[in-house]
Amino acid sequence: MSELRKDPVTRRWVIIATERAKRPSDFVGNRPKSSPLPQYLEKCPFCEGNESQTPSELISYRQAGTQKDTKGWWIRVIPNKYSAVNADVPLERQGLGMYDMATGYGSHEIIIESPFHNRTMANMSEKETEETLWAYRDRILEQARNPELKYALIFKNYGAEAGASLEHSHSQLIALPVIPKRVLEEYEGARDYYAYKERCPYCDIIREDKMDGERVIFENDMFIAISPFAAPSPYEVDIIPKQHSSAYEKIGKIEIMELAKIFKVIFWAISELLNDPPYNFILHNIPFRSNGIEFFHWHFNIVPRLTKLAGFEWGSGFYINPVRPEDAAKNLREKISSLS
Amino acid sequence: MSELRKDPVTRRWVIIATERAKRPSDFVGNRPKSSPLPQYLEKCPFCEGNESQTPSELISYRQAGTQKDTKGWWIRVIPNKYSAVNADVPLERQGLGMYDMATGYGSHEIIIESPFHNRTMANMSEKETEETLWAYRDRILEQARNPELKYALIFKNYGAEAGASLEHSHSQLIALPVIPKRVLEEYEGARDYYAYKERCPYCDIIREDKMDGERVIFENDMFIAISPFAAPSPYEVDIIPKQHSSAYEKIGKIEIMELAKIFKVIFWAISELLNDPPYNFILHNIPFRSNGIEFFHWHFNIVPRLTKLAGFEWGSGFYINPVRPEDAAKNLREKISSLS
Repeated sequence: MSELRKDPVTRRWVIIATERAKRPSDFVGNRPKSSPLPQYLEKCPFCEGNESQTPSELISYRQAGTQKDTKGWWIRVIPNKYSAVNADVPLERQGLGMYDMATGYGSHEIIIESPFHNRTMANMSEKETEETLWAYRDRILEQARNPELKYALIFKNYGAEAGASLEHSHSQLIALPVIPKRVLEEYEGARDYYAYKERCPYCDIIREDKMDGERVIFENDMFIAISPFAAPSPYEVDIIPKQHSSAYEKIGKIEIMELAKIFKVIFWAISELLNDPPYNFILHNIPFRSNGIEFFHWHFNIVPRLTKLAGFEWGSGFYINPVRPEDAAKNLREKISSLS
Repeated sequence: MSELRKDPVTRRWVIIATERAKRPSDFVGNRPKSSPLPQYLEKCPFCEGNESQTPSELISYRQAGTQKDTKGWWIRVIPNKYSAVNADVPLERQGLGMYDMATGYGSHEIIIESPFHNRTMANMSEKETEETLWAYRDRILEQARNPELKYALIFKNYGAEAGASLEHSHSQLIALPVIPKRVLEEYEGARDYYAYKERCPYCDIIREDKMDGERVIFENDMFIAISPFAAPSPYEVDIIPKQHSSAYEKIGKIEIMELAKIFKVIFWAISELLNDPPYNFILHNIPFRSNGIEFFHWHFNIVPRLTKLAGFEWGSGFYINPVRPEDAAKNLREKISSLS
């Protein structure tokens, strides 16, 4: 029997359609098993040695003594060549009749996660992933210094079907003078929950899911990976810090190490179980200079792109998920335990 | 220069990225020009003569004297064989720890729009389209009689990339005991606008866009087709009744005739201009038994599926549209005027 489930924060209803239940292997073929990637590709602008093919770097983590925009880096942050927004124009907000608009002010950056072409979140070392996680922190802090900007969205598109136009492992940051709608919804949802319960909803989710057990995929000392109760699509994973924290940019060294560890486990398991699927992930973080440190709780939301969004989802915001989140968690747990 | 634009009802911000501007022909190739479809296909369950391949019909519009589930119909409404929800189970709402859920109660119906395999919204006669529009009304009225149901979503997926699993022209209805999130957002957005302005936002949009002129695509006595000011994706079209009306199911005979006329013009123009693209459309209607007749204004939203949704859009609800709505309107207007 199918079920209707409601997300406790955003209050979005989802259909869990167990009659249409799919096994992990039903999704195989969404992406043909790719042949191994080379370590270096001459025409890839993100490969080490090809720095001149990109805009000049904003920051990099690199060996002492090496020059900007040359070899010797392990993380490189550059402006997006095809940026949708930029900070060269002044921010001007204006009305146009009944409508509201603003100039396309903001930042759009690419975080190149490795000098090597053949790295993915599933095969990187924990140490490599740590460096990417530090770069997220540093770029958020940098954007937050600009009083015109209200939010920095950190996200990753992996695979062409998930919107990645380049294969080489990278994440993106878009910083904006307005708060994106879904971010605001989650923020307001958490605020309303807190007003009612005087507890952070994500702290409640961690307690509830640990007690129940069925939706927990993996945990270590500082982080927990769960299959969200009302996940809109199959095999979504939330990675949440176990200790309440509203702002990712306050993360410390030991937490980064633990976060890299859980990233490694989860992306390896997704890749193995679902045949290296395309995916997106998004960092859900508190808007700059906002109150709400007691109710907002940062986390990563990982979304394998296994199903097609149809008109129904688009227009209604009402999703049909053909895999019970508890079954997804079980399959991922089993894959992970096969490793140890 | 790109722009940030805000939807006046949902208050969603969109980036109009003019630097990435695309001409209509840039989208060509999203869908290969298909060879003409046959009028009848033996293996198509929706073709006339194949009625036994589907669940038994709920209603049909058919020639007097013909039998249920046999030839002789021109509109046929059947239960979805792979329904995500159904009304055979009792509706039971329950808590599960901190979570809220309900049984998968509801209706999921298919409206087969023609006995012939080769009809599309772009090539149907106005008379054929009228019959589909009557079927929408009749099925909404039928669902509204059930006090457990709160909303009936009418939508259409055209083309595999838009989620259609069968080629034969059909629409769908999903009726639910909960109000889908985006519907509620629009409803609440319209309510807030009305509370502030004491005018319906859609009536304001019609006035504003007619005065401005740039976003109007086509109008007749009773309907107007516009390119929404803050459209999240290229070539979206809203078809709105010019006279305020909150509930589609109250539509009258002359309005149905005028609506069929504007449907014909718009779907023909989209198909010609964008090479028969996949698309979705959704009827935005007021929830059953709700107040709000003064602020909610029903309309159709048509979304050609020309761009891929990436992680950024998914996680943020913040869309990048590479075509200015004014340019989309101009191109559609020119295509339409080439007809007359």
